[in-house]
Amino acid sequence: MKGKKTDLGDVHCGIARSLSIIGDWWSLLIVRDALRGMGRFGEFQKSLGLAKNILSARLKKLVEHGILRTEPDSDGSPYKRYVLTSKGEELGVVMVSLWQWGAAHCFAPGELARTLVARDSGEPLAPLTLRTQTGRELAPSNYGTAALPAMQGQA
Amino acid sequence: MKGKKTDLGDVHCGIARSLSIIGDWWSLLIVRDALRGMGRFGEFQKSLGLAKNILSARLKKLVEHGILRTEPDSDGSPYKRYVLTSKGEELGVVMVSLWQWGAAHCFAPGELARTLVARDSGEPLAPLTLRTQTGRELAPSNYGTAALPAMQGQA
Repeated sequence: MKGKKTDLGDVHCGIARSLSIIGDWWSLLIVRDALRGMGRFGEFQKSLGLAKNILSARLKKLVEHGILRTEPDSDGSPYKRYVLTSKGEELGVVMVSLWQWGAAHCFAPGELARTLVARDSGEPLAPLTLRTQTGRELAPSNYGTAALPAMQGQA
Repeated sequence: MKGKKTDLGDVHCGIARSLSIIGDWWSLLIVRDALRGMGRFGEFQKSLGLAKNILSARLKKLVEHGILRTEPDSDGSPYKRYVLTSKGEELGVVMVSLWQWGAAHCFAPGELARTLVARDSGEPLAPLTLRTQTGRELAPSNYGTAALPAMQGQA
């Protein structure tokens, strides 16, 4: 539905807006796989086990929203590759937040066999932590929203 | 489906496991509202505009997964309140990652009227940043997974 500003109603909520764009878990898992280096239709299909028409619709939506772009495959075949834009790459932070929460709360002890590391060095990742701009560490529920200064004169 | 380990197949992926538990955007928006201090059925219903039976099923699932718990309402009424557990509160990091991505990429300039602040002090939040355990800042796509040491002898 083009032109519809948000499917989730709350126009002042960055969370609702994100969710209205990345839309469903399959889209997020496609982004996950693209962050793992996948780019071909068949790679996503094998990883996710999605029906072709559903995968095709999800990829199209991700391209429309500027999260993926297409480019010719480097092997010279007539197929195209799906590549993350910088907007798409920035979803890496969302992925890591989901991974770390899942790793902490959704596995039995010893069940999860893998951990997050820096791709360039193999060093383990630190847990994502909420901080103020001055660096003070916050508990994960110690946040809220406030009117931006430019908007405070309104409403 | 109780007893089904994951609906998304990938048993070594913290992201897939998180998504199989928080399951759909409505569940995440319920958690968002609980983080904003809502606790009554009617408050969630008014905020989300969800049908009663759907909201009821989502709340039940969140309680079953230990993300919310119920307690008697403090006003002495026969109604119960839904309260976040610590597992639920830790989803605050996921919420902030979604907000910050949405704020950066899903609004026209000047359109988003609110910003994230520390609840206790009103200080603005810093962007969540991937870091190694030694504190080195990483680009948002510079992560991967590696076998945990205890598992390296296997497979």
